[in-house]
Amino acid sequence: MAGLYLSFLFQLFFCLSCPATNPSMLNVHLVPHTHDDVGWLKTVDQYYYGDRNNIQHAGVQYILDSVIDQLQKDPARRFIYVETAFFYRWWKQQNQSTQRIVTQLVNEGRLEFINGGWCMSDEATTHYSAVIDQMTLGLRFLNDTFGECGRPRVAWHIDPFGHAREHASIFAQMGYDGFFFGRLDYQDKARRMKTKEMEMLWRASESLTPPLADLFTGVLPNGYNPPEGFCWDQSCDDAPIRDDPDLEDYNVDEIVQKFLNAGFYKANHIIMTMGSDFQYENANLWYKNMDKLIKYVNALQAKGSKVNVLYSTPSCYLQELNLANLTWPLKTDDFFPYADDAHDFWTGYFTSRPALKLYERLSNSRLQTCNQLEVLGGPKSKSGPFGEGDSDTMSKAMGVAQHHDAVSGTEKQHVAYDYARRLATGWAHCEVLVRNSLAILSGSEAPHVFCENLNISVCPLTESSHKFSMNVYNPLGRTVSWPVRLPVNGSVYSVTDANGRAVDSQVGNVFISLKCTCYIYDMKSSCLLPLLSVRWYNASAGNNKESPQTSGAYIFRPNSSDPFVINKTAETQIVTVSSTVQEVTQWFSPWVSQVVRLYEGHRELELEWTVGPVPVADGLGKEVITRLDTDIKSSDYFYTDSNGREVLERRKDYRPTWELKQTEPVAGNYYPINSRAYIKDDKHQLTVVTDRSQGASSLYNGSLEIMLHRRLLYDDYRGVGEPLSEPGDFSDGLVARGRLLLTFTPPDTAADVHRPLAQGMVLQPLLSFQDGTPSANTKLEFSGLQTDLPPAVHLLTLSQWDEDTVLIRLEHQYQAKESKTHSQPVTVNLQKLFSTLDVLGASEMSLGANQWKEDMDRLQWNAEKTSKPLPLSAKDPSPWEVTLNPMEIRTFLLRVRQL
Amino acid sequence: MAGLYLSFLFQLFFCLSCPATNPSMLNVHLVPHTHDDVGWLKTVDQYYYGDRNNIQHAGVQYILDSVIDQLQKDPARRFIYVETAFFYRWWKQQNQSTQRIVTQLVNEGRLEFINGGWCMSDEATTHYSAVIDQMTLGLRFLNDTFGECGRPRVAWHIDPFGHAREHASIFAQMGYDGFFFGRLDYQDKARRMKTKEMEMLWRASESLTPPLADLFTGVLPNGYNPPEGFCWDQSCDDAPIRDDPDLEDYNVDEIVQKFLNAGFYKANHIIMTMGSDFQYENANLWYKNMDKLIKYVNALQAKGSKVNVLYSTPSCYLQELNLANLTWPLKTDDFFPYADDAHDFWTGYFTSRPALKLYERLSNSRLQTCNQLEVLGGPKSKSGPFGEGDSDTMSKAMGVAQHHDAVSGTEKQHVAYDYARRLATGWAHCEVLVRNSLAILSGSEAPHVFCENLNISVCPLTESSHKFSMNVYNPLGRTVSWPVRLPVNGSVYSVTDANGRAVDSQVGNVFISLKCTCYIYDMKSSCLLPLLSVRWYNASAGNNKESPQTSGAYIFRPNSSDPFVINKTAETQIVTVSSTVQEVTQWFSPWVSQVVRLYEGHRELELEWTVGPVPVADGLGKEVITRLDTDIKSSDYFYTDSNGREVLERRKDYRPTWELKQTEPVAGNYYPINSRAYIKDDKHQLTVVTDRSQGASSLYNGSLEIMLHRRLLYDDYRGVGEPLSEPGDFSDGLVARGRLLLTFTPPDTAADVHRPLAQGMVLQPLLSFQDGTPSANTKLEFSGLQTDLPPAVHLLTLSQWDEDTVLIRLEHQYQAKESKTHSQPVTVNLQKLFSTLDVLGASEMSLGANQWKEDMDRLQWNAEKTSKPLPLSAKDPSPWEVTLNPMEIRTFLLRVRQL
Repeated sequence: MAGLYLSFLFQLFFCLSCPATNPSMLNVHLVPHTHDDVGWLKTVDQYYYGDRNNIQHAGVQYILDSVIDQLQKDPARRFIYVETAFFYRWWKQQNQSTQRIVTQLVNEGRLEFINGGWCMSDEATTHYSAVIDQMTLGLRFLNDTFGECGRPRVAWHIDPFGHAREHASIFAQMGYDGFFFGRLDYQDKARRMKTKEMEMLWRASESLTPPLADLFTGVLPNGYNPPEGFCWDQSCDDAPIRDDPDLEDYNVDEIVQKFLNAGFYKANHIIMTMGSDFQYENANLWYKNMDKLIKYVNALQAKGSKVNVLYSTPSCYLQELNLANLTWPLKTDDFFPYADDAHDFWTGYFTSRPALKLYERLSNSRLQTCNQLEVLGGPKSKSGPFGEGDSDTMSKAMGVAQHHDAVSGTEKQHVAYDYARRLATGWAHCEVLVRNSLAILSGSEAPHVFCENLNISVCPLTESSHKFSMNVYNPLGRTVSWPVRLPVNGSVYSVTDANGRAVDSQVGNVFISLKCTCYIYDMKSSCLLPLLSVRWYNASAGNNKESPQTSGAYIFRPNSSDPFVINKTAETQIVTVSSTVQEVTQWFSPWVSQVVRLYEGHRELELEWTVGPVPVADGLGKEVITRLDTDIKSSDYFYTDSNGREVLERRKDYRPTWELKQTEPVAGNYYPINSRAYIKDDKHQLTVVTDRSQGASSLYNGSLEIMLHRRLLYDDYRGVGEPLSEPGDFSDGLVARGRLLLTFTPPDTAADVHRPLAQGMVLQPLLSFQDGTPSANTKLEFSGLQTDLPPAVHLLTLSQWDEDTVLIRLEHQYQAKESKTHSQPVTVNLQKLFSTLDVLGASEMSLGANQWKEDMDRLQWNAEKTSKPLPLSAKDPSPWEVTLNPMEIRTFLLRVRQL
Repeated sequence: MAGLYLSFLFQLFFCLSCPATNPSMLNVHLVPHTHDDVGWLKTVDQYYYGDRNNIQHAGVQYILDSVIDQLQKDPARRFIYVETAFFYRWWKQQNQSTQRIVTQLVNEGRLEFINGGWCMSDEATTHYSAVIDQMTLGLRFLNDTFGECGRPRVAWHIDPFGHAREHASIFAQMGYDGFFFGRLDYQDKARRMKTKEMEMLWRASESLTPPLADLFTGVLPNGYNPPEGFCWDQSCDDAPIRDDPDLEDYNVDEIVQKFLNAGFYKANHIIMTMGSDFQYENANLWYKNMDKLIKYVNALQAKGSKVNVLYSTPSCYLQELNLANLTWPLKTDDFFPYADDAHDFWTGYFTSRPALKLYERLSNSRLQTCNQLEVLGGPKSKSGPFGEGDSDTMSKAMGVAQHHDAVSGTEKQHVAYDYARRLATGWAHCEVLVRNSLAILSGSEAPHVFCENLNISVCPLTESSHKFSMNVYNPLGRTVSWPVRLPVNGSVYSVTDANGRAVDSQVGNVFISLKCTCYIYDMKSSCLLPLLSVRWYNASAGNNKESPQTSGAYIFRPNSSDPFVINKTAETQIVTVSSTVQEVTQWFSPWVSQVVRLYEGHRELELEWTVGPVPVADGLGKEVITRLDTDIKSSDYFYTDSNGREVLERRKDYRPTWELKQTEPVAGNYYPINSRAYIKDDKHQLTVVTDRSQGASSLYNGSLEIMLHRRLLYDDYRGVGEPLSEPGDFSDGLVARGRLLLTFTPPDTAADVHRPLAQGMVLQPLLSFQDGTPSANTKLEFSGLQTDLPPAVHLLTLSQWDEDTVLIRLEHQYQAKESKTHSQPVTVNLQKLFSTLDVLGASEMSLGANQWKEDMDRLQWNAEKTSKPLPLSAKDPSPWEVTLNPMEIRTFLLRVRQL
């Protein structure tokens, strides 16, 4: 590792070759780039190959072919590439000669990787765990392939529809020097343009000690497009530069003048994105005309012009800004919700495609399980008694699923199917690995069966077998209690645990409660019912009066602020009241029902909702919400999480950084939730933990609403070209089912409940089944950890890195000050973690695991002073004992030996 | 010249490198090509640069950039390029390094020039003189740039809308080994597909001794497109070959099978055009997928497949066909008219844009004059007292004007304007040259004024001056009589010739008759009037019953076979009856009038028609014809010329080579005329000589009709996307004016009249004016020729080739047997031609002047036997005395010295 370290250092100076600028002139940094969606109107592979060009002309293989050709023609030319999911596909199809050429271009800074994750993730509907994974996947490929020169220095989210603070925090911890994006609220942008606040320092955590989560952030001047009239891609119609005086329409003077009039910022550096969606398939068009633009604009310098145009990259632009040593405005909230006009709030996609959103979240849980079992099972887990298995397929499937037109729900239907299919294929590969690993760990090669359809009470094995065993793998770092419901045909079952002890269970609906911890809690499910209602907003079909904007995959625009209540007097049936569970079922209508459950020993109320097929024969699109109306005096305030981690305060009809002119009283108050939302007053807090990402708001004092499902009849003019109306398997519309966990607590103990509850929802136990009785030598119980992790510590990542190295991430899962008990530094001994692994060495890494922690040397920025007290960090007591401060994630590569 | 000759021989073996084929397999020749219209929806320069891509995505500069890049990646890859007007523009923008690379690709046969004229000329509306010129312009550039390896071996007219026999004759005489085209009548194609007659030997002249005008001719299987499903251009949506098993939708097997099922000819060679309009802008898409196609299809040979796919060129394909040594069917008529469906006859464009068609024809006359005066005036004509002048600009303007969407009238309006503007600019350059040359030849630098608007009686100089002189330059090789009409303000003028002798003239309308030869002729203009009528067909707007086809720029489809007569009782006024001229004016309607003139001493009747603005406020498109109804017993027969040279017999509702099913009784009987049409019986022949290309037919016994003008309200769905409705300068529709010359003769003396009459119409005297009296030393008369050429001989070309070389083409202008007097071999002494030039040497060339005549070694083909007697040729009596046989054109480079 020392050798590798030296090689990093050597390359560090070699690959950062920025073009010369002119300090006495306005330097215009032309940044040639392409924005390659990892699936949207076409699937990721259709985009890669350029298939189905009748849907959209786009072929990434050709983009990379063409750019590499064109970069070789002139050392001044630059290009940035962003999406590693595509670059990886392309790279492995190239011969050695091309690979050598590309490596040289990277080493010389002519081809620069930016962002570099597997995809450009969505920021509203992704969970931080999956975001970190997909970034790690992409960054690792770049590091393995190109070394230090392949390390992206700039985060680049030019297309996502609003920006999460947690994403900025993640990028900062991954070592990025800066962050650029394209979309923000039109009112906010107008103000920033006016006050010259398009560039700022984003302090992205209230818990981490600055500058740990500080990120220089720039809003790009033209979204991510070129200035008007300067789009020279094959997909554009702008006039090329015609510089042959012998031909008609010589236009050099006109074009140069237009460029000089383009209205730059007042600073002496400006960045210009020269590219857009899937551009550069024929890079010659771009470069040939940009070559001419540079030549002719700079030729005017001899006549006194003070404009200097150059090929550049975001890193080189950023370096110039940094050298300027200015003071930047400070940003501490986030960039949600995003509106591009008065009635055009991109808050619908927070809920779009709820089934895909759940499947993605479940897949994350499965991937973590798969990763952990690969580590615990050792090399034979990938090639064992059940064949060849791997976690890579699932990693890549999850990588593309994080894309901002994937889990966001804003892709075409056939593309949504493709994402789901990839996750299913990923899991199929994982299943083999898991079977192998469980065989190794249990000492029995009896086959494990997975029941994929327990959510609709289908499991052939349990339904037919008189005697079966169930394996439960818990991927969390501590013991949990988890109720299980299985379909069976018998009426009397004896249920025992690994030690032969009886387990609390009930037939009828069989409940198996694992290791329950008991709480006193006075809530009864039935007493909550009056608080709950299911309603639907009538989706706007556009109107001529205010705006033609419709509600669609991206946009939420209700026709009226008052949602329709679905059958106020629901048919209610108490199915079971037993020691295990209290359960109430409500039928609101043929397409909306709800089961409310309170499990013995649990503090949370479970709300299992079933919505669909949403009827649209009446010609009305419907956006279905569940609303909880309480006596909590929340006023206009409510709270939503950011990518499942830190919680941000929200206030109705209000934005912290500018004076909002509210134009959509409902949609303009919706925010994404990834794991939870809450309202509170001095005494009470209602927290809702979700099983997937959703949109939520609080529009009335004491009220919290969550959007569950949407079915719409019109496209919303943002490119997807389809109304969001998902087909069902057996009916004309998709049925979605999900769970919300509700807790009522005093505010100061709320985090102690919702933090572990949410992690338990994210990382669910994996159930597998075996017919008959386990053979005699079967090991029935196993823990990979020597002991439960401390309550504040979450095992975020445990995955095999290479033959004798594993990647581990330990996370402090509490924010500063949110828990009296847990919001404290906590120490873990890395050597004493695992029961089956001997830890021989540990190297701390950046969050993305593509840089040694000690090498991280981010650019320093001066921010405006703030009056907020800054959190402080505790230090490690010893090299093996690592201390986690609130909200801190620490990433290590551990050299291990199987015991 | 001997040295150059050796260099030709050397390269001959070097550059013909065809790919290996497999004699035991079906060899599929993939021919990568692009079809680049020299103007159509965009101007030629817009196409070159890729400007106005909103109209059509097309940028030729990028095509050539991209193809050259891609050819370098694999020596197996081939490409053919056709249009030298584009290649020339591109070549001169390249640096030496690129030029070297391209030269090497050409030398190695990887880039092959095909056709190679300045453009791919239209075949229906072009005059052979301009066609030969534009071919010479392109071929010379290729020869000068690349030598023998740049010489195209194949003529390639994949897009023109029907094919003229004279074009085939020209191509044969230019040394082409074969000819491929894409469009022919759908009935003809179906029959040929069935009888395997898609390839044939075209005997393109009834006068020239075979194989002088024999041309191997192939109809391409898919027009000029790739087989369905195999279009991999950026402009296509066909599925790419997806050969990465790790990605979704692996489709190699499916694509290969589809290719093998594509249904080839039964021969063991098949040509496949892999390209189309403006394709290969991103050649990587094409080559990457074709590479894979070749790889995977040929891989099946190991499993017994008998299909061998290879990159090839038309020349290489032709070479294989030639080696097969088969006997081919013989074709002696032509491929007009072209119909692609039952009601879709492409016979409208024969007349579309009549003003552009006239302007192009006049420009040809001006270019010949310019060329001749450049030779006669010597080097100072290009740089003399009036500045820098040249004939190149006009040559190139005429070169693009021959394109099959230029003079054809099938371009968009703004493109038609561009062609006209180019011709005007060309003439402006020529004007300087002509002024310089006339100054040199006359010994006076008094400025010459040209009056461009004599057709509307505008000439400021003659209208204001009391005394002026007129210069007349006659570009024909013999003396002609030519009436001149000038606008003047005085009422009494004395008109004298160069020797001070009075010239017959008349004021009122002033007529100046130059050197009239007198004929007895009994025709009076007034007695002809009843024969003449102007009518209009109501253009079809499409109908649901038979076909939605409309009449448009390409298509002629009258709504009814009966045209409307425009005011049968025309207001008729005899303006002048004098010794100079008899003139009758007829006003048929406010938008149609006609002047009928008979000049003293002339045998022909002049019909000056004025049509327009054609009114369309009634919602009816109109196609205006003039019809001559005579007592001639022509039955169903009539005669039309081919590109202004040989005449073909036409027969109503009949095609010589297949049993016609006539579906359009009018449009299906229209043929293009470029210089003349006639009907005849045993005793009489009515010949009409035109001033431009037009459509004509004979639908009734004794009747001949010529379409004069068209104004239409609908696009005809062939891509131009505009209705043919030309705007006028001062009104809402274009006014067209033109002349028809009518002769009534016995059939056996008709050619003696119409041949010189037509040449006089094509090459008109150039008039220029000087104020006042010429100065004393001015030479008032001059002839470049020592003496008039013999009556059968036409001076087709006289132009400066390089410093001491001139290009001359002498043409026998009579067909075999058409004239008792003139259809005989005739001999000219090259040394005794010029009055101002000493001819030091003469080298005979191919018709295109890009090959020594003695080096011409065309491929030999076996044709079916024919019963027709073959014409024989007379030989040259001596090296300087060259004999012209009927319809023969002989091309020489003369080494000359100014006397």
